[in-house]
Amino acid sequence: MKSGMAFLVAARQCEIHELQQLMRTSALVRPAGECVHELQRERGLSNLWLGGGNDFGRGLELQVERTRRSESALRAALEELDTSAGRIGNGARLYSRIAYALQGLDALPALRADVAARRVAADFSTRAFMQLIAALLAVVFEAADSATDPGISRCLVAMFHFLQGKELAGQERATVAAAFTCGRLDAATLQHWLHLVDSQDRCFAVFVEFATDAVNAMAQWRTLESSTRTGALPRMRALALAAAADSQLPSARSRDWFEACTQRIDGMHEVERALAAELLTLCRTRIAEAEADLAARQALLDDVAGVPAGTFFDAEPAPRTDTAALVTVPIGPQLERSVLGMVQEQSHRLQAMGDELEAVRATLSERKVVERAKGLLMAHRRLSEAEAHRMLRETAMNQNRRLVDVAESVLAMSDLLAPVPPAPMR
Amino acid sequence: MKSGMAFLVAARQCEIHELQQLMRTSALVRPAGECVHELQRERGLSNLWLGGGNDFGRGLELQVERTRRSESALRAALEELDTSAGRIGNGARLYSRIAYALQGLDALPALRADVAARRVAADFSTRAFMQLIAALLAVVFEAADSATDPGISRCLVAMFHFLQGKELAGQERATVAAAFTCGRLDAATLQHWLHLVDSQDRCFAVFVEFATDAVNAMAQWRTLESSTRTGALPRMRALALAAAADSQLPSARSRDWFEACTQRIDGMHEVERALAAELLTLCRTRIAEAEADLAARQALLDDVAGVPAGTFFDAEPAPRTDTAALVTVPIGPQLERSVLGMVQEQSHRLQAMGDELEAVRATLSERKVVERAKGLLMAHRRLSEAEAHRMLRETAMNQNRRLVDVAESVLAMSDLLAPVPPAPMR
Repeated sequence: MKSGMAFLVAARQCEIHELQQLMRTSALVRPAGECVHELQRERGLSNLWLGGGNDFGRGLELQVERTRRSESALRAALEELDTSAGRIGNGARLYSRIAYALQGLDALPALRADVAARRVAADFSTRAFMQLIAALLAVVFEAADSATDPGISRCLVAMFHFLQGKELAGQERATVAAAFTCGRLDAATLQHWLHLVDSQDRCFAVFVEFATDAVNAMAQWRTLESSTRTGALPRMRALALAAAADSQLPSARSRDWFEACTQRIDGMHEVERALAAELLTLCRTRIAEAEADLAARQALLDDVAGVPAGTFFDAEPAPRTDTAALVTVPIGPQLERSVLGMVQEQSHRLQAMGDELEAVRATLSERKVVERAKGLLMAHRRLSEAEAHRMLRETAMNQNRRLVDVAESVLAMSDLLAPVPPAPMR
Repeated sequence: MKSGMAFLVAARQCEIHELQQLMRTSALVRPAGECVHELQRERGLSNLWLGGGNDFGRGLELQVERTRRSESALRAALEELDTSAGRIGNGARLYSRIAYALQGLDALPALRADVAARRVAADFSTRAFMQLIAALLAVVFEAADSATDPGISRCLVAMFHFLQGKELAGQERATVAAAFTCGRLDAATLQHWLHLVDSQDRCFAVFVEFATDAVNAMAQWRTLESSTRTGALPRMRALALAAAADSQLPSARSRDWFEACTQRIDGMHEVERALAAELLTLCRTRIAEAEADLAARQALLDDVAGVPAGTFFDAEPAPRTDTAALVTVPIGPQLERSVLGMVQEQSHRLQAMGDELEAVRATLSERKVVERAKGLLMAHRRLSEAEAHRMLRETAMNQNRRLVDVAESVLAMSDLLAPVPPAPMR
């Protein structure tokens, strides 16, 4: 007959299993990030090429080769993934995201042919790369959202926000490079640019908050931050923002802008690599700790007669409860020496982990609220995803509120957003 | 090389795996509920016996045998459980709860010996049974909290609240039986009684809200409700509440009270059995549906050349996003015919399921908030679990607020609840 101790050991084995699942997911973050990085460069160079910069053609060709190599590495990592059920936590959502991203990668050669032949505008190409990069970042988001260990979850949340911030820096590079190339900075582009700078700062603030355990990545980030402050980028930003007054930009500086941004983004890429390495180290450490603890418990299980059971029924007057509360008891070293003490210690630890995890994941909830509000608008107003997002964003700008606050309001008003009745059959 | 379609199939396989995990967990709910039912009866009879009712001795002996049989059935179900990692979702938490409940069952024979020899007071015995029943209900709670399918989650939430309401009915039976036996109903007991009736009503309201798919259980519950209204219980309640004015109860009616309550609780037990059966049917149906869908997808995978890929890059102008939003696109029948359409449909469905699941689980969050507030008080004020709960409950009564609202305030004030510094070493 299985004893309480046997279930305690089984609980710990499940924790180790979850950590191993998490490590397999985390191993995808690095190649996904590498592929995003190369796509970002390709987007920028495609933009310069489509903007008429014929001298960018050779650079773009070389970059396409680099992107292809990173894509192959990502596909190889996906190929190695054991996709049989139960090998990855939250597999249903993660694999759906991967399936979507793969569709995007499959569509890339056709896009490249259109870019090379200048059959599409810079605007279309930029959006297409953004869509593909967003699909890859959604894979990282799903990994962060499924983490069952607070420490690893913090690291994944830091990683997702860092990649997101870096993508916004890439969008800044592309948007402003396009403006330089055509020699004009209109009011809408200026506003969007300022918005991109602001959103980047917010993402990196979340990274700094959550990456406290990733000391190497953090040190590299601090170095990058201080060198950026004295580097070419702030001068270029200042130059362009000053030029905004008369809406003219020196188009000859297009390449300088691109290079200054690229230097910073390449620095971010190094931070990202350090973070990815520290993420995997953290997974390995947590698994080793849990295995050591399990071994100690199994040794106890073999000698369970030597461990006192502990006193289950509480001598102290219990309160009358309106819900039969989960019984948790304060833990002290003397308690842990009994089987009951170990059970209570485990229960207490899982509770604390669950609470911490919930707090970390709340960081991801803004994105979910916006997604849900968009879904609601799409269903009830028959809008496309792009239209729904635009409606939210414009409402936020008009009302001078944050996007997430507008999304919250939309969800709160969902009953009022009566669905459009289906069109008659004929 | 794995295609997007292969990951789509893998995602569906993961969903089936999760449903199978959920079915294994759900199969524990029935024997846990049976054991709780017998423990409730044994608690009531122990109370009558400890209150001096010598003629209850034989009935108690017979009941102990019944409880032992239900305990054996529960242990057998646990024995059958494949506890190897990955076989059960949320295994770490569930097994910890099971380990704790087993410790309680192990401690039961010693409690029974004390009851038989009248070495403990009715008060102590009642609390001990409550503690054990709470430990078993915590197993059901964990099952409900880990469900990954909205329909099954609704059914498990209904089941947990039904069992909780039934336990409160059992506490009412025990509390008032003790008052009848000693012939007195003091003001505190009266208040507690009214509170138990009120809490029961809230639990059954949640059950009615969430058990909409369990038509048999719901029909039985409606029948029970109408028969209770005309049965002996309301008369007994009225009699006792009228007697409250002069705080005297006719002690000879003790057995009548017990019988009237028992009749209602036994009726609830039938509802519970119907609900448990419908829960398993629901699990089986969902698995069959998912398997049929998977087979259809696999057939497509074998003939993937025949399925158009779909157009990944959106021709419509995409909005500028401040977060690279998860790309979701409106779903129509024409889209689903392409691989991309199927990917998007799957992604959309998982998103909708996730949203619905979150809404259902929010029902469980009150309990979690109270648990967290208790944990905080225990850690910061060095209180026992019982003291922490009493502090919350008394604050709620004094301030005329709900327990969960007080708990929320405690969590919001957590920074102010400075931890008590550790006592000096000597």
